[in-house]
This record gives sequence, structure tokens and C-alpha cells, in this order.
Amino acid sequence: MTDFTATRAMFDLPDGVIYLDGNSLGPLPRGVADRVARTIADEWGKMLITGWNDAGWMDLPARVGDRVGRLIGAAPGTVTMGDTLSIKVYQALASALELRPERRVILSDTGNFPSDLYIADGLCRTLGRGHTLRTAPPEDVAKALDDSVAVLMLTEVDYRTGRKHDMARLIAQAHDMGALVVWDLAHSAGAIPVDVTTAKADFAVGCSYKYLNSGPGGPAFIYVAPHLAEDARPALSGWLGHESPFAFEPDYRPAEGVARMRVGTPAILQLAALDAALDVWDKVTLEDVRQRSLELQQKFLESVEAGCPELTLASPRDPAMRGSQISFRHPNGYAIIQALIARGVIGDFRAPDILRFGITPLYLSDQDIERAAILLTEVMTQRSWDKPEYHRRAKVT
Amino acid sequence: MTDFTATRAMFDLPDGVIYLDGNSLGPLPRGVADRVARTIADEWGKMLITGWNDAGWMDLPARVGDRVGRLIGAAPGTVTMGDTLSIKVYQALASALELRPERRVILSDTGNFPSDLYIADGLCRTLGRGHTLRTAPPEDVAKALDDSVAVLMLTEVDYRTGRKHDMARLIAQAHDMGALVVWDLAHSAGAIPVDVTTAKADFAVGCSYKYLNSGPGGPAFIYVAPHLAEDARPALSGWLGHESPFAFEPDYRPAEGVARMRVGTPAILQLAALDAALDVWDKVTLEDVRQRSLELQQKFLESVEAGCPELTLASPRDPAMRGSQISFRHPNGYAIIQALIARGVIGDFRAPDILRFGITPLYLSDQDIERAAILLTEVMTQRSWDKPEYHRRAKVT
Repeated sequence: MTDFTATRAMFDLPDGVIYLDGNSLGPLPRGVADRVARTIADEWGKMLITGWNDAGWMDLPARVGDRVGRLIGAAPGTVTMGDTLSIKVYQALASALELRPERRVILSDTGNFPSDLYIADGLCRTLGRGHTLRTAPPEDVAKALDDSVAVLMLTEVDYRTGRKHDMARLIAQAHDMGALVVWDLAHSAGAIPVDVTTAKADFAVGCSYKYLNSGPGGPAFIYVAPHLAEDARPALSGWLGHESPFAFEPDYRPAEGVARMRVGTPAILQLAALDAALDVWDKVTLEDVRQRSLELQQKFLESVEAGCPELTLASPRDPAMRGSQISFRHPNGYAIIQALIARGVIGDFRAPDILRFGITPLYLSDQDIERAAILLTEVMTQRSWDKPEYHRRAKVT
Repeated sequence: MTDFTATRAMFDLPDGVIYLDGNSLGPLPRGVADRVARTIADEWGKMLITGWNDAGWMDLPARVGDRVGRLIGAAPGTVTMGDTLSIKVYQALASALELRPERRVILSDTGNFPSDLYIADGLCRTLGRGHTLRTAPPEDVAKALDDSVAVLMLTEVDYRTGRKHDMARLIAQAHDMGALVVWDLAHSAGAIPVDVTTAKADFAVGCSYKYLNSGPGGPAFIYVAPHLAEDARPALSGWLGHESPFAFEPDYRPAEGVARMRVGTPAILQLAALDAALDVWDKVTLEDVRQRSLELQQKFLESVEAGCPELTLASPRDPAMRGSQISFRHPNGYAIIQALIARGVIGDFRAPDILRFGITPLYLSDQDIERAAILLTEVMTQRSWDKPEYHRRAKVT
């Protein structure tokens, strides 16, 4: 049984803050500062260029990839780290399209994270051969599958509402239609149990700075199903995806397996931060995290609904249909979140009207959830949000 | 006049090491550890998600981009940081090809860094519309320009030999032929004076972990000439290149200018490291660095040629034709470099037979250069390299 008091002690949270935004940027794990300091002083500073071998930097994307892989049901050697999620989406889509050369459609849903849609649309334009991005409402995606679809690209958990797709079912339906599937696990990895192997995902990608707590701009991951890995041609064919990068051969030969999805020189400071941040997962099962998250979600949902009738639930009411967040709608959502932040409860706002609260048991207690609901109720009943300063938009909202 | 004793004091070099590999990974600037530690503890740890506004993370790619821009003659607002050099090469090439839709050839030279060639070839395959990568020997590139060439893609300074292209002349020749030009400044930025504006470069890209000392995996940069920036469509159309990323609009609208070349969430720890590393450039002119580099190069070249007749100069003899490194050839180059490293002089080897020495005045003195030449002479005259342990290849060579 996971000891969530122990996991909470592994995070360095500011006093007086209740952090319900770990679904956007996870808080600082205690081990990270030391690990990065050592990477800088003892590795870069002392080993200099030899750190690539002697400190194991060159293997870090694969080694950390295996640690992330365990959290999404991926076998060792099937996940590598690097770049950003948008880049990894591009890589997965470009490879998948080439594996279905007779087809021209990428199918996604209107709830997908916009960057995934932008990247897909941009790839279609770049190809210039009649590929198109088609979107359907999340609940109609299965119906929109037909034999023109080369790739079904979905984010398992909706960034606005927390609505969770049935991954295994949609994969089976897509495969029945002859399509490949690319899953974005940004709001899944470290939040809910995922098993890309059993579900038969073809490609999966995700970021590490949300529920994996790697810090701002931490590296993304990409999984390629083993039976596809040797046929998937990387569109971004950088030297570190080469079979023998340091032979400096004139021609590209892809590395074995997922290593070919590496592109350029890996961001070692960010990878070191992630590696340290992952230590908490040695003490935790995702099943326990999931169960605890649902308990905390239920508590938050009941208290907020009881105290704040003006807020409309945006997340599915069925807990099995949710990821690890609870969202509400309100036309003054932005100002409400600002007023709440002023009281020490950090949630976030997503345009046009979503108040989003990440429920992360690794560092949130029952008391935190109760207190957050009380303060939100206070903000609503006292209309504390109705002040000019809470309506002024910052650049990043 | 630049005080190179003062700049040397800004780097944290291990005792007893003479570092001639700053052209591969620059050493640790003293300010970096503190800056990254503050970014972790005071920004990420305390500000959490609000760091994107309150610590200025969101603006860091542009702000640091302007600092790098000053070193390559780019106007403020024309450079942004992010991703890796290979990704930035892909972006520049994809945009440039679209700006020359009637043409199908990317022209480069056989001395270019392999990743640039791999990326170009991969892009041509992804496009699937008959684009090809053509290469010519470096000295014949101008002759190979014809009206089928959409883009001329060159690295200004050859990573093996240090041979420097005449950037302004080649740009003029390419423009005369109606081609656009993409310059890789990996071995130029911070090494030699560059002026992309006067030379009329269309696109320029580079990395920051060599002569800009940002540490392992530091972010890359991309410059887009202002007259092209509004027409250049980003192939990697990620949300942070959107005009209004936090509006989460369904359709992509590129941001104004070079900001559209941003893709995903920027790697803040690596950007903070780079920002601190750039402080040394407030005290230095590139003209002084260039002059001092040539003095040190000359000293090294003369001493090594006098002491090591077995080594063949691989760099151009004319100093005006070189960047900031001196390279030699020897069939046992790998073992020679290992024997030299064992004596505290870190240079590097590049397949098949290149011994490569970066000459970086910011932290190398006359004494360092003399001592390095003496130790190399010792290794050669005593055949110290002829031991089995110096022939065993590490993964990264």
C-alpha cells in the first residue's frame, strides 16, 4: 500500500500553497536540485566532453525512457526521451502516415490539445500531397473512422475537461479499419494506469513536466510498438537516431528500434532533473495513485458542488470516465482562478471558461482538498473574484 | 581591448586540464551553477506554474535569442532559441523549400555535418515529391549552383577541418541563381565574427553548447531574415509558435516574425544555463576573440608542425580560411587523442582520422597552448599512443 505521507515529503512545496496545477507543471521534487547541481559541477564541470561516456549522458534518453516506460506499460527499450511533445507528435504522425501510404486522413477529436492539431495540420501542408486533418467530437470519433483514415491521433485525457477516452476500445476499432493509432499521454503518464502494450497502441507520446514533475520544459517521450519500430522511418532523421552517429557516415541509417526517434543532442540538465523526479515512482503503484486520486476527486467534487452552485461541472460525472483532474465552467473563470490563487490555492484557467484542478495524490492530502474547496466556496459566495485586478490577463493564463 | 585573463576567470576549469574541445562542449562558466540552482529553487520551487509569467520563462527564448543574435549580426527580434540544431535545420529547410515551390534541389557540401545532411535527406523523403539532396565538394559548391537549386545549405566552418566558407560571397552567388541559403553556424557563433544581416543570410541556425558554453544539450537558435519571416511557414507548427497560444484556438495562426519558429514548451533549465553563460560576451568583442584565436592557432600550429612531422595539417594553412580550430590527420588519430587526454590535454577525434583542437581564447592562455603542443609532441615522439588501452573505442568518440 502506497504511503502518501511519505511521497508528499519528497516534494518541496511552498508553505501555505495548495497546488492543484500539477497537471500543468508538477512541483519541485526534493531530489532534483542536488541532482542537477551535481550534473553541472561534477559532470559537466569536471568531466567536460568525456561526460558523454563517463557520466552516461549519451544513454540517458534510453535509461530514463525505460523508467517512464514502466509507467505506461511499455517494455524496456521501447521508449526514448527528448525534444518536446509537439516534436514527438510530428515524428509519430509522419512515421504512421508513411506506414499507410494509400491513405490520406489523420482523424482526431475537437477536444485534443491544440498543438497536436496544429502539428498534424502543419504536417499535412508540408507533405503537400492531399493529406488532411479531420476532427470529430470526442464522443463521435469511433463513428468517424473509415477506410480513408491512415492515423487516429487522440489524447487519452482531455486537457480541459479531464474526459478519458477508452484507449483499448478505440485502438481495436481503428485497427479493424486498418488505421494506426497515435496516443498523446500528456495527462495520463503518472496520473492513471496506462498499458500501451496490452491496449496495442502503435505510437504513444507525452510530456514529463506534468504528472512526472520534471520541471519547466522537461523532455518528452515517444513509444513505438516493437512490431512497427523497424519499419518506422523517422522524418526528423537527426544524427543521434543514426545507427552509428559517431561514424559520421554520409548516409543516414536508422538505429535499431525506438532509438531512431532520437534527433539531436539530448538536454542533459532537463533529463537529469527528470531522472531524479522519477524516484518517487519506486515507492508508488499507479493503481494506488488512481484509487487515491478518485477519492480526492470525489471529495473535491462534492464539496465544490455543495458550496458553489454557480459552477457547472465540465468533467464527466462518472469517475471511470475521468483522468486525474476536475474541471468546472464559469463565464468569469479567469477571475475566479486569480482570486483563488490570491488565497494560496493554485488551479488554472483554460479558455474560454474552464476552471481546471489537478488532483495529484503524491503531494495532496485530504486536508488540502477540503481547504481548497472551502476557499473556492468563499471566493464564489463572497464574489471575491469581482475585482478589476483579477480580470487583467497575464501573457500566460 | 578584451582582458582575456578576466574572461578566463569566468570559467570553472578542472586543475591540470588544458581544454581544447570547447568546439564540441564548452566548459562550465562560473555563473551557471548558481543561476540554474535559483531557477530550480526560487522560480520552479516557489513560483510553480506562475513562473511562466513571473520569472519570465515564456519570454526567455526571445530574450536569450536577442543576446545570441548580437553575436551573429542579427537584429533584435530575429532570433529565437529552442529545440536542437537538427530540428532547427529541418525547420529552416522546410520553410525555405516552400518559398521556392518550383524547385526541387537542396544543395550542400560533402564536408557538412552529417546530421544536417541526414535531416535534409529525411525531409526530401518525407515530402515525397521528388526533392533531392545534392552534395558537392566544399570548393565546388558555387559551381554546383544552378536554377534547380531551391536551397543552398552550408555549415560555415567545417566540423572536421575548420575550413571556413566565404559566407557573403556564396550567399550572393546563390541569390543570383534564385536560391535561398540556410547557414549552420554551429562552429561560428562565439568563435568568429559573423554578420548575417550584412551577408544577407536567409536562414541561420546553430547550437549553443560549443563556443557559447551552455552545457550538454543546450538549446539551438534559429534566425530568419526579416523580409522572409512573415512568409516562412513553420513545418513544425507547435502551439508556442502560434500567434496566441493560450487562446487554444482550433486553427494554427503563425506568430509574428521568428517567434513562429518556436515549437513546444522551452527547456527552461537549459535556457537559464545559456543565459548565464552568455554574460562573458558583455566583456568581449568578437573581433578581439578572432584576433587572439588566430595568434593562439598560429602558435599551436607552428609548435606542432615543428615537433610532430607525422601529423598532417587538415585545416587550411591560410588563417583567413579557418574558423577557431586546428585539425591534423593521422591514421592512429583516435589513440593519439586518448594518450593526450591521459596527459590532461583534451582534444577530440573525428572519424576517420582527424585530430581536432578547438582554440578558444576566452579560457586558453599562451602557456596552455605551448604546454599542449609540448605534450602532443611527447605523445608522438615517444609513441605513447601505441598502447592497447588507447585503441579501445568508447561509445562516443
